[in-house]
Amino acid sequence: MKLAVIGVGLIGGSFALALKQARAVSHVVGVGRNAANLELARERGIVDSIAPDPASAARGADLVLIATPVAQFPGVFSSLKDSKGLITDGGSTKRDVIAAARKGLGKGVARFVPAHPIAGAEKSGAAAASAELFRGRRVVLTPLPENSSSDVERVEAAWKTAGANVSRMQAEEHDAVLATVSHLPHLLAFALVHEVAGRANSEQLFSFAAGGFRDFTRIASSHPEMWRDICVANRDLLLVETEKFSMKLERVRKLLDSPAELEKLFAEARAARDAWIRSS
Amino acid sequence: MKLAVIGVGLIGGSFALALKQARAVSHVVGVGRNAANLELARERGIVDSIAPDPASAARGADLVLIATPVAQFPGVFSSLKDSKGLITDGGSTKRDVIAAARKGLGKGVARFVPAHPIAGAEKSGAAAASAELFRGRRVVLTPLPENSSSDVERVEAAWKTAGANVSRMQAEEHDAVLATVSHLPHLLAFALVHEVAGRANSEQLFSFAAGGFRDFTRIASSHPEMWRDICVANRDLLLVETEKFSMKLERVRKLLDSPAELEKLFAEARAARDAWIRSS
Repeated sequence: MKLAVIGVGLIGGSFALALKQARAVSHVVGVGRNAANLELARERGIVDSIAPDPASAARGADLVLIATPVAQFPGVFSSLKDSKGLITDGGSTKRDVIAAARKGLGKGVARFVPAHPIAGAEKSGAAAASAELFRGRRVVLTPLPENSSSDVERVEAAWKTAGANVSRMQAEEHDAVLATVSHLPHLLAFALVHEVAGRANSEQLFSFAAGGFRDFTRIASSHPEMWRDICVANRDLLLVETEKFSMKLERVRKLLDSPAELEKLFAEARAARDAWIRSS
Repeated sequence: MKLAVIGVGLIGGSFALALKQARAVSHVVGVGRNAANLELARERGIVDSIAPDPASAARGADLVLIATPVAQFPGVFSSLKDSKGLITDGGSTKRDVIAAARKGLGKGVARFVPAHPIAGAEKSGAAAASAELFRGRRVVLTPLPENSSSDVERVEAAWKTAGANVSRMQAEEHDAVLATVSHLPHLLAFALVHEVAGRANSEQLFSFAAGGFRDFTRIASSHPEMWRDICVANRDLLLVETEKFSMKLERVRKLLDSPAELEKLFAEARAARDAWIRSS
């Protein structure tokens, strides 16, 4: 099986490495904007060859993974219009990706099975790729009405071979769930670090920040371009989430006058989190 | 040297263990509300004996560490009014602790050198105590005008013996710095988890939460009573911080319409955090 990876970063590179390790692919061709990154991908054995553009890479490929920043997806889909292989992706939002696929692929959208591997990390690039990235992690497929069930199963099988726990969801539901548990926390973390960094005494502030701050803000070290695309693509749902969060924060602020109720809210939050950690 | 520990939890227990390991104390007496926790502290060799109340424990002690939740400090200070040894504490806020000390200790406040070990963890109790907790961590002393410099130096030496990097600050400055880098993030994490837990589809939401959410919310597993006390004690500064954060979040929301500026803000946040991580 020949695999084409458009965007050989953390997700694309890890997918290729995992399928190679499982001996599920015989040849991986990579495409990307960054020549040094592609060369590193070749040196690391992530890709076997490099193609100049998505159309060339997809020629003869059984499966194409699009793993560029989402803002590049429209151009990539257009250039894959006449390709033949199955297509999946690693985009963190799905409604916008599907809209771009319909526009760029036309009737060929039937060959596209959307996927979101929930396996981000604050590291990026081929250097960070690992065959183990998807091991035990969730991948959400949001199949289209146009997809044949056999194509959906083939894409599901590929992600499972990469080690993932695959589930299926509607694109709208996916984007709403991820807005709450991923996009909003990223926005909050970026906002807090930006706030601290902008203070006149930021150096002092950072010097007294400890482990809690470090973990809370880990996701603020995420890829700015990728997160710009996610936030813009999921803007409507993210506005709903920030609005709800602001209301909750306002409620918590008011509880600073009601110690018993404040403690109850903290205790409920801790209990919910601890139950989740135990079950995950 | 005899050490009395009022409140043998994570902080009090770890202080005792560290000074014992360094052979800086010969006897540790513990006081606490929870008999099972105290018994565990004795079994683990954290305390050598148990006293019924702070006044008894402090009798003959060279150093007393108050490490109960801050809401109990006023009562503890009152009962230490006639004690003789040096007193330090592990409270996360300092203005309120100092006010309570002045009230409870009267002129004896000269024997109290306030301290804040910035070494929290979401675990609590004697079971979580460790001789290594303070190793390389910061401890902030906020000495009083009444303290003799030799007393401040003795308390500083004790915390250094426990492994800490000790610095000094005014109480007001301490509380402002910690409001920004510790208390606000805790409030945000508690608020987010409470929001997610309160949704009709909370089970689904948690099931798709990944590593980013886990790290972001780690501090929402912190001790509810302790954090109630911190937030109430530092209420005025925390209100300022939540107000500033809300304004920043509002700005980020607006940037969802300006992708280039949004990416710039994300990139600035990432650069600031990465610089901090490299330097710490």
